[in-house]
Amino acid sequence: MRPFDLPLGFKYSTTYAGIRKTEKDDLALIVSGVPAAAAAVFTTNRVQASPVRLARANMRASKGVCGAILINAGNANCATKSGDRVAASTTKALAKILKLLPNQVLPASTGVIGIELDENLILSKLQTLCDGLNDTGLPEVARAILTTDLQPKGASREVTLRRGIVRLAGVSKGSGMIHPRMATTLAFAMTDAVIPQTLLRRMLMRATEVSFNRISVDGDTSTNDTLIVLANGASGVRPDPKEMSVFEESLTELLQSLARQIVRDGEGARKLIAVEVHGAISDAAAGQIARTISNSPLVKTAIAGSDPNWGRILCAAGYAGVNFDPTQVDITLQDIKVCRNGLAAPFDEADMKIRLDDTDVSIVFRIAGKGKGSATFWTCDLTEDYVHINANYRS
Amino acid sequence: MRPFDLPLGFKYSTTYAGIRKTEKDDLALIVSGVPAAAAAVFTTNRVQASPVRLARANMRASKGVCGAILINAGNANCATKSGDRVAASTTKALAKILKLLPNQVLPASTGVIGIELDENLILSKLQTLCDGLNDTGLPEVARAILTTDLQPKGASREVTLRRGIVRLAGVSKGSGMIHPRMATTLAFAMTDAVIPQTLLRRMLMRATEVSFNRISVDGDTSTNDTLIVLANGASGVRPDPKEMSVFEESLTELLQSLARQIVRDGEGARKLIAVEVHGAISDAAAGQIARTISNSPLVKTAIAGSDPNWGRILCAAGYAGVNFDPTQVDITLQDIKVCRNGLAAPFDEADMKIRLDDTDVSIVFRIAGKGKGSATFWTCDLTEDYVHINANYRS
Repeated sequence: MRPFDLPLGFKYSTTYAGIRKTEKDDLALIVSGVPAAAAAVFTTNRVQASPVRLARANMRASKGVCGAILINAGNANCATKSGDRVAASTTKALAKILKLLPNQVLPASTGVIGIELDENLILSKLQTLCDGLNDTGLPEVARAILTTDLQPKGASREVTLRRGIVRLAGVSKGSGMIHPRMATTLAFAMTDAVIPQTLLRRMLMRATEVSFNRISVDGDTSTNDTLIVLANGASGVRPDPKEMSVFEESLTELLQSLARQIVRDGEGARKLIAVEVHGAISDAAAGQIARTISNSPLVKTAIAGSDPNWGRILCAAGYAGVNFDPTQVDITLQDIKVCRNGLAAPFDEADMKIRLDDTDVSIVFRIAGKGKGSATFWTCDLTEDYVHINANYRS
Repeated sequence: MRPFDLPLGFKYSTTYAGIRKTEKDDLALIVSGVPAAAAAVFTTNRVQASPVRLARANMRASKGVCGAILINAGNANCATKSGDRVAASTTKALAKILKLLPNQVLPASTGVIGIELDENLILSKLQTLCDGLNDTGLPEVARAILTTDLQPKGASREVTLRRGIVRLAGVSKGSGMIHPRMATTLAFAMTDAVIPQTLLRRMLMRATEVSFNRISVDGDTSTNDTLIVLANGASGVRPDPKEMSVFEESLTELLQSLARQIVRDGEGARKLIAVEVHGAISDAAAGQIARTISNSPLVKTAIAGSDPNWGRILCAAGYAGVNFDPTQVDITLQDIKVCRNGLAAPFDEADMKIRLDDTDVSIVFRIAGKGKGSATFWTCDLTEDYVHINANYRS
């Protein structure tokens, strides 16, 4: 992770609580000096882990005010008898130490599903965790929340506004919902800008739509997906109404960076694939086509093999459930046109193979005509390693 | 393929026309002595190959009367400039030889997408093909229509009705839409029963819904999927109204067998997985859950690794977009309960591993309560071989 300028007024801490078997920090804490405006997005899976249910309830009860986020890796605290009790007791105990209302603490968990989480492992480490709070430990948080993904994921932005500078920073973990009985996507973003809660929520919804809702590793949606943004106002700078869009753009870029890092670090992934669709009848239709191409195992294996397989791309678009005229479609791979008006376009195979060996692959699907809808999705290639990792976890 | 009793009044022929590179029959013909009642189901992909468009048009123009089916493998005749002309000229020429109306010939193609198909390869072999027509050559048809799938697929049934015996037989090819630029599922079923066309069509719709619409290899839908049923009445036996359901059941079983054979022969597949869902709020909801479990790469890789990963199954069901209470769910793998009321149920890991090493795997997902909806889906495991085959076709 590259170093970044951290937003003012946040503190971080991590420790090893013995939740995961290997001795590697598995408990992380993010605290705001003053309770912050909070906005959150949770999984839409019907099966929701206890921390997701509690965080959702706390967000409602506190009217979007949050003082701390308590995160553990190694156990998803999902589909267990004690799940609700563990989420409640640990966040309450933390609130007491930090002198916050219990509903101002948001829990998040990632790891194995269906195995009881021993609350004492967490309870006995809360004081240690709070004692360790410091200004610079966000990179350690990024590492502590990893499960099967390899690289810590972080991003930061600094925005100069008329009234001063505000900072944004965030961390995330992936990779899809990839690991056996593992639940996945977590992301936490902090800013020291002054942003009213209702506005923060609207910004987060819009930003999520073009970041975390635009990535796919394997199409599986986890029981624990959680994305939280905190705005604590510690900079004292409130973007003026005309500059709110500048701030929102920066937040969007931050979340897109965190989302793309998850895809790039997808299990077995060697390539980040950007799928752009233009000329659809609406942005939603473009999104549907981009999503379907991104989820196609045939497209993802073709890219793994550096195979300029535009027939698979056209075919996947064809079952996206969206109307378009196939004879109006151009497909570009790595800036080279491989399909024009739905038919093969000549290209240099050897050159294309070299281009597709890159770790960044661009697919552009363009429909000629009046349609103005466009969308970009990010996915990764599907390699033998993905299957190997996921088929052989327990054996 | 096991031997079967063929329906009366059909003839078959195959030959090598040089469409595929390896010298292996790639052109097949099915002819009915008298034009038969025909019903057909075609791909819903927005990108439709020329033979699909022509077959659809011919079905309409002939009002569901068909005398011959002309099938080629090795080239999908899709996304090419000459596609429509090739489909039209070859079926017209065949109709002339067989003294049929042009719209009584239905074309079907499978193979590479986006490469021009030379019509002369087919035209020059039509007379040979017709000269070779014989009563017993259906197994050769099953072999000639294969592309990347390994095993010829066939099934047959004999039904004893009050008025006499009727026979059904069929062939299919797969395997999903699996191969680079390859388009896939084809199935042809013949019966010598007397079945009015409108009734045949309704039966086919219902039977397809619980057979070909219930299988998944990789979730990709091809540009060329075609399923045709012909009833030529050569037995002289018309099921009486009360026995139509007996005939329909037999047709359904035939199509289910052909569909399951496609899944078992999915690329890289080592296991056929039956996913049963019970207790959903409707059959449609059950189907949606079964489909989502069947399409989950995480479930499919877990089964490949003989991993009793019920957390992935529960999680996949959770994002099926259907309401259910996770705490009411029991999951059974190979007849052993692994999840009870949404929580882990104890089982013998070593015994389960051995059970899951079987080539037939059963997943039963049961929701307790009042729901009466149920559905069965068939899928296959996702192995490293699938990725290997699909990533390395062109290189």
